[in-house]
Amino acid sequence: MCLSYVYHQVEIALQEARAEYSRFEVQIPNKPSWFTEKVNPAGKVPAITYGGPTTPADDPSPASHKLAESLVILEFIADIFPDSGLLPSDPLLRASVRFFINLVLTKLHPAHLNAMINRGSPDHILSAIDQLQPYMPGGSLNDSKGPFIAGNTFGNADAVAAAYFIRLDGCLKRDIGSFPEGEGVKAYNVLHTSEQYALYRAYLSALAGRESVKETYPEMFYGAGMSASLTI
Amino acid sequence: MCLSYVYHQVEIALQEARAEYSRFEVQIPNKPSWFTEKVNPAGKVPAITYGGPTTPADDPSPASHKLAESLVILEFIADIFPDSGLLPSDPLLRASVRFFINLVLTKLHPAHLNAMINRGSPDHILSAIDQLQPYMPGGSLNDSKGPFIAGNTFGNADAVAAAYFIRLDGCLKRDIGSFPEGEGVKAYNVLHTSEQYALYRAYLSALAGRESVKETYPEMFYGAGMSASLTI
Repeated sequence: MCLSYVYHQVEIALQEARAEYSRFEVQIPNKPSWFTEKVNPAGKVPAITYGGPTTPADDPSPASHKLAESLVILEFIADIFPDSGLLPSDPLLRASVRFFINLVLTKLHPAHLNAMINRGSPDHILSAIDQLQPYMPGGSLNDSKGPFIAGNTFGNADAVAAAYFIRLDGCLKRDIGSFPEGEGVKAYNVLHTSEQYALYRAYLSALAGRESVKETYPEMFYGAGMSASLTI
Repeated sequence: MCLSYVYHQVEIALQEARAEYSRFEVQIPNKPSWFTEKVNPAGKVPAITYGGPTTPADDPSPASHKLAESLVILEFIADIFPDSGLLPSDPLLRASVRFFINLVLTKLHPAHLNAMINRGSPDHILSAIDQLQPYMPGGSLNDSKGPFIAGNTFGNADAVAAAYFIRLDGCLKRDIGSFPEGEGVKAYNVLHTSEQYALYRAYLSALAGRESVKETYPEMFYGAGMSASLTI
């Protein structure tokens, strides 16, 4: 499986914000009982604890605040680190960041999920990327001039995109998925040779080259599952 | 149909922010061609235009910014009206507002949608409300003391909750839905008499009594469809 993108978004954002945090990898479905009891009753990752006394991530303090849901956590990190650039200060740029995240979650996420576990065709991933490309850097509907969604500063939209793009790219390259053998590699070759996907490749390259992305998702994890509970 | 909650959230937020805006009701599926061409290529409501010269809502200026997706718009309104209280200033309270919105969208929304159009049982709406109640005002997981999600100030979570709650309540009361006749009224009676749903009733009452909610969704529209494009 290569679906644990939701925790990854959060860890990229924490790194970009230069937050000090400790992490605990929760193996799902064999998660420890303290996680559901003390951190997230829903049992889902990512989850973070914030404030209260410093404790190991696997022994959270009752005095700390517990937060769940990746998008809620991403906004929270941007709120407590306003100088991080995870969200720009301009309201219209902030909206463009959130709109792009929404596009990834409503277009790319279902296509990726279906290809991984529901025998969906990788062609649907290509179609989703077609829909996203105008909003990517250099696209006709992206007004900023930088290599990232909101310009020169890496932000929350890029954290979300990075978590998805490097996974789907790694899965297709290795033909990992529920589709017939060879279809993943075929889609990968289209993505990496067709002029149609030049914007995707440029954006993927900018994302994959980012230190926060490389440090949190080394090549060895392509195609492997990882989940984490984080304490900041 | 009584499903046009997404535009309603946005109009409640605009009223709460005391924004000056003009509105245009887009009839879906018979939407005018200018809407897709000039406002939202995806053809969905709500959509807003912002900035540029003042024009009628049905003649948007090319110089205005176009925004779509209700949650993106709600955050945008909170950003451009920081004193509105739509989002509190405290990062943890902001997270609680966003978390509650996420709960409504992931628990109540599918249950409501299924009951309306997919023959889902209204019992699933009750189950969703069971899951939401601890986070409602007075609930065990809601730390604020006011009648609204973040305390005494009506905010984005309340706008989203109001749009859903008054619709589902109105639909169940009138037995409007795809379920067998009588099941809606039965669920309504449980919601309005059982001690188990006391928090729901108190919160619904606080929401339904709010001027912004009453002005944007008069009783005559219970069970009727409404969609809108807004220019601010």
